[in-house]
Amino acid sequence: MLVNDKHYRTVWMKDSSVFLINQPLIPHKFEIFECKNHKVTATSISDMIVRGAGAIGATAGFGIAQVALEAPNENFGAYINKGTETIKNTRPTAQNLFTAVNRVLSVIEKQTSPETARKAALAEAQAIADEDAAACKKIGEYGETLIKDGYKIQTHCNAGWLAFVDWGSAIAPVYMAKQKGKKVFVYTDVTGPRNQGSRLTSWELLNEGVEHAIVADNACAYLMSRGEVDMMIVGADRIAVNGDTANKIGTFEKALVAKKFNVPFYVAAPLSTFDLNSKSGKDIPIELRSENEVLNAYGWIDGKFKPVRISPKGAKAINPAFDVTPAEYITGIITEKGILSPNEESITKVF
Amino acid sequence: MLVNDKHYRTVWMKDSSVFLINQPLIPHKFEIFECKNHKVTATSISDMIVRGAGAIGATAGFGIAQVALEAPNENFGAYINKGTETIKNTRPTAQNLFTAVNRVLSVIEKQTSPETARKAALAEAQAIADEDAAACKKIGEYGETLIKDGYKIQTHCNAGWLAFVDWGSAIAPVYMAKQKGKKVFVYTDVTGPRNQGSRLTSWELLNEGVEHAIVADNACAYLMSRGEVDMMIVGADRIAVNGDTANKIGTFEKALVAKKFNVPFYVAAPLSTFDLNSKSGKDIPIELRSENEVLNAYGWIDGKFKPVRISPKGAKAINPAFDVTPAEYITGIITEKGILSPNEESITKVF
Repeated sequence: MLVNDKHYRTVWMKDSSVFLINQPLIPHKFEIFECKNHKVTATSISDMIVRGAGAIGATAGFGIAQVALEAPNENFGAYINKGTETIKNTRPTAQNLFTAVNRVLSVIEKQTSPETARKAALAEAQAIADEDAAACKKIGEYGETLIKDGYKIQTHCNAGWLAFVDWGSAIAPVYMAKQKGKKVFVYTDVTGPRNQGSRLTSWELLNEGVEHAIVADNACAYLMSRGEVDMMIVGADRIAVNGDTANKIGTFEKALVAKKFNVPFYVAAPLSTFDLNSKSGKDIPIELRSENEVLNAYGWIDGKFKPVRISPKGAKAINPAFDVTPAEYITGIITEKGILSPNEESITKVF
Repeated sequence: MLVNDKHYRTVWMKDSSVFLINQPLIPHKFEIFECKNHKVTATSISDMIVRGAGAIGATAGFGIAQVALEAPNENFGAYINKGTETIKNTRPTAQNLFTAVNRVLSVIEKQTSPETARKAALAEAQAIADEDAAACKKIGEYGETLIKDGYKIQTHCNAGWLAFVDWGSAIAPVYMAKQKGKKVFVYTDVTGPRNQGSRLTSWELLNEGVEHAIVADNACAYLMSRGEVDMMIVGADRIAVNGDTANKIGTFEKALVAKKFNVPFYVAAPLSTFDLNSKSGKDIPIELRSENEVLNAYGWIDGKFKPVRISPKGAKAINPAFDVTPAEYITGIITEKGILSPNEESITKVF
């Protein structure tokens, strides 16, 4: 989508480097981060230079392609195995990471020489990125049909294009509705502790000219109880076969509130986010991140990106990065294959 | 309660000055703020140098006493009226402010000379502060009976002693339980946008040696769904006759989550927080504060308290400071007269 009226993707590969929009600097600074080898790519995932389900997946796919490019002929298989572990051990919750890694690995395994394996890996990684962008555009088209002219839509965290390769999942329907001339307004939660809603979603919406307001994470029940929200759309980091959905911490809370006030609550995600090995949310690992993310706020001050302490010295924090919203709270799951019901029958049918 | 092992109140009066703990600097710096006249006292309420239901009430009471001290004999009544308006127009939601102002005004009105009115105003303002501290201690005693050894208690915002003159409301039962030798653990929400949970409640608990962890506002459903919270206690800014309770934005959301997971949800507040003129939550005005509080985070950096931008330039925000939790979500209201049921019969009986 657009950055200062020029089109960008969040991640792309050129020669042996992976290029990323440096997301912790958004919205304060727009900068491209170059990962010259797979180790830097892995660190950029764990340090969240790149974040968001689809963007992590595409980056991980390119990372495996880098592993293949770097792997010496005489030690090809062992290098691939080691590099794969490095890429996999970056973030535990996002299913797209594992989907992408396994896709690139499976084409590598089918090749008979390192040389053809490298070419195949690059092509597959590029296909993953292109398919992510195309899937998100389709999500936009299906989701747009749910949006009536004048709708006020709440979202949580960032599941816009910065979280994917392009278009995004939760915000794609909003972009599509705007392109079709519908009037839409977005409430974006700040989304503590990392504030991806106020930093990233708002920045995206400003660049695309979508009217919106940032609200504190605590304001959901206030807004919905006053009838100010017509629907809620969120993204997903992993969806189990029964429809249970892992997403940014707080999603479950918002879903409970939406249910109470009969606000339709949609999850938007490409099929690469589904984990057919997870029968329910209980099978999804939840990442616990550093307490420093909760003890500090991160912002832009005097031309630099800095942490500021919002807690006393000596205080402790607990920082689960995700929660699981049970399927019963989800109205529907918007995918590139249509809008699914959050249950095993509807989900397994599209695979 | 204790600051570096020395006892303090949040607000007191000496000669013609009102002294306040400068709360925006907590937990980074402990500093006493002197209000030399009622106008500075009023600004210190609207700028939230002092905040929290009971502390605002006591400060407003002292502020009216300052108005009486300042009022010239020849123009006494008119000066009182004007000063009262200034004090009243600081924060619209906290009932304690209006309770305190009306109490001091009513003793002034009974006097026949400016001289005796000044003395009576000072005495009444001091009585309000002393009664607030005593009421909160009683709240601690009643609330303590609800806490079992080993309980994990979640709270929202700061309704500890910094929000009152001493002891606090929601945290008083925790302090009392600890003094009685019970093991207690507190989860304190960060409480965006002003982060009073991570800044103030955590600082209080550290000073009193209470074990606790700060959690993101979004983590409530995660914690409660895993059975990690035994009860929730929050404060109140205004309680209607039917038990509907206005409190910090997000309280309603947490109450909905608590109900879902059968976590007892208590409100703790002195009787000065009840508004017998509000039949239900619909009668309680909700303060909308500056969008800058949402667009920025405020913290301590390089030895100074600074705002850092957590949103793009040009972004807008909506910042309701409070929400109203309907009585049906409240297990009980802990007051200095015992634990009330959240309904008109139980509430009107104690007045």
